[in-house]
Amino acid sequence: MANEFTVTPWEVKGKVDYMRLAREFGVQLITENEINTLRELTGEVHYLIRRGFFYAHRDLQSILNRQRSGLRWALYNGRGPSADLHIGHLVPWMLSKWFVDKFNVDYFFELTDDEKFLVKEGYTLEQTNKYAYENALDLIALGFTPDKLHIIIDSEDIKYLYKIAVRVGKKLTLSTVKHTFGFTDSTNVGAAFFPTLEISVAFLPTELYGEQVPVLIPTAIDQDPYFRLARDIADELGYPKPSTIYSKFIPGLTGEDKMSASNPDSAIYVTDSEKDVRRKIMNALTGGQPTAELQRKYGGDPDNCVVYKYHLLFQDSDEKVKKIYEDCRAGKLLCGECKAMLFERIREFMKEHNERRERAKDVIEQYRISVKFR
Amino acid sequence: MANEFTVTPWEVKGKVDYMRLAREFGVQLITENEINTLRELTGEVHYLIRRGFFYAHRDLQSILNRQRSGLRWALYNGRGPSADLHIGHLVPWMLSKWFVDKFNVDYFFELTDDEKFLVKEGYTLEQTNKYAYENALDLIALGFTPDKLHIIIDSEDIKYLYKIAVRVGKKLTLSTVKHTFGFTDSTNVGAAFFPTLEISVAFLPTELYGEQVPVLIPTAIDQDPYFRLARDIADELGYPKPSTIYSKFIPGLTGEDKMSASNPDSAIYVTDSEKDVRRKIMNALTGGQPTAELQRKYGGDPDNCVVYKYHLLFQDSDEKVKKIYEDCRAGKLLCGECKAMLFERIREFMKEHNERRERAKDVIEQYRISVKFR
Repeated sequence: MANEFTVTPWEVKGKVDYMRLAREFGVQLITENEINTLRELTGEVHYLIRRGFFYAHRDLQSILNRQRSGLRWALYNGRGPSADLHIGHLVPWMLSKWFVDKFNVDYFFELTDDEKFLVKEGYTLEQTNKYAYENALDLIALGFTPDKLHIIIDSEDIKYLYKIAVRVGKKLTLSTVKHTFGFTDSTNVGAAFFPTLEISVAFLPTELYGEQVPVLIPTAIDQDPYFRLARDIADELGYPKPSTIYSKFIPGLTGEDKMSASNPDSAIYVTDSEKDVRRKIMNALTGGQPTAELQRKYGGDPDNCVVYKYHLLFQDSDEKVKKIYEDCRAGKLLCGECKAMLFERIREFMKEHNERRERAKDVIEQYRISVKFR
Repeated sequence: MANEFTVTPWEVKGKVDYMRLAREFGVQLITENEINTLRELTGEVHYLIRRGFFYAHRDLQSILNRQRSGLRWALYNGRGPSADLHIGHLVPWMLSKWFVDKFNVDYFFELTDDEKFLVKEGYTLEQTNKYAYENALDLIALGFTPDKLHIIIDSEDIKYLYKIAVRVGKKLTLSTVKHTFGFTDSTNVGAAFFPTLEISVAFLPTELYGEQVPVLIPTAIDQDPYFRLARDIADELGYPKPSTIYSKFIPGLTGEDKMSASNPDSAIYVTDSEKDVRRKIMNALTGGQPTAELQRKYGGDPDNCVVYKYHLLFQDSDEKVKKIYEDCRAGKLLCGECKAMLFERIREFMKEHNERRERAKDVIEQYRISVKFR
């Protein structure tokens, strides 16, 4: 059963068939139709969408329609904070940055320190709360301004969410959350309640602005169960249905379908030294031939190469990516050179990121939702 | 099966056997031992304890020991707010007042507008929140000062409870809350999570004061499941175990074991007119003989008389109560006269209550926990 895989908000196992996953979740694929509308509205389309990393959605068109009509909408996503943020985690937030810049929308970001504590053994709430602050620095480092990015730390900003969560909670039976998230009677009641909070942020802009403000949620496809439920109950609660745009997972450098915390060499952490980054990239699995001679003769297979996938995620120049692809296939580019190019790009990205991250420490409070909404 | 009865936090059915209930819940009866310690510490014992209305407890002695050693403890109880507050609801708060006055302790009071909304069909959260404010006025009217009484309205003051609730929630599986509260898979996930909040207030003083501050909880015995759980998990969470002191239920005037909202004549509401109060009392079930003549000849049965039970709850003079009891048994007091005496007492009580309640409207904000703790 080589094609079996599991995708839940807590686990990705096996070789993921993204098309089948989209079908099973009942989400739409992003087509030329959505891409054309985006291009029409903004003049360009972010490479993470064009290159198919963000590949599926729920009701994206209705957000684009609002944009065309000059109606308000907001952006929302978040993170279960942890110590081991890797650069793959930054990728969806890069798309958020593009949305904020292009559409001048407010961006609500939820750091679920409560959830991380509830679902992980061995963490204290103080620890996950500390990670929330650390991860917030990485988010801010991507260049958001405090007038647009509103950070919610669940354990501290619960007052913004709880009234909504209670209404959401009344609509969801234990049976529903058990079936949707795979909970059992052994699940703790905090973890069982948590989905109401992830759903509540989708309805928060409507409460804060006192008008119907739907959200667009750029996130990895494993988060779909939350927003499927959110869409199911939105009408009854008098809130607009959230729209979503879903990415694939960031592949592990050593070949896993998703970077994994249990194999430190599968991912590049934002805290890795240059030396570590170089080693990890140099050891990455490629689609290259076993020897340089064979590579020159037959060319490589970029479509099945983790290094090429990383080029797709971190090189914004289409020309450069195209050249890498073609040179690889033609045998003109050897894996060592290709990895060195990727290392150079990642090194530069991380250097800039860490400088900005350092500066974010002085301004983090300005981004808190509590300083902006009563 | 005349002796069958059900007692849960949401339902009291049948003829309650309080001794059996105490045994089944595994709580201790209040004995001369506890009463003597109270008398020794305060010089007197409140009639609600002496007369056996508060009749059971968990670990009351440990609070009394702290008091003797000059160590801090706090008082805690609360209410699921509703429109139909009846005077029976005020009785446990009268005992709270006595504890606050005698021991100069802080009193935390939780208005669970979230729970009421979650477990009742047909209520909006705005409604239960409005009732929370209304019920707070009745509490304040009993004479508490704002330096001692700290009112928590769940939906608004959730930030004081949520971090504790998350820790509590991690310790309670769905299986545990299902078995303890009779929840099923059809229960909504908000209602299933709510017990963590009622439990959390028991641990709040320890967080607020930064030292181990156990609470004493005066409440009706149907709330025991919450505090049994609280005691089970307190150690693991590093909190002191709460102690409790449990009352029987206020009997309905028309003979039910607990005043019931579904029979308006079974209870005297704080909003009832004098005329209504008189009618309800005059129609109350008594332990009297069918005729005045028989009453004079054989005497009445105060031990099985709702009117006498109300005298026990609302007359603070022991002498008066004793005289009523003896005169009734001796046939010297007829039911009509006895009811008139009760009406006079309740009328006076309600008049004073409603005057104080009116004045409370101007000062309610001073009692909010949020104005006193950061």
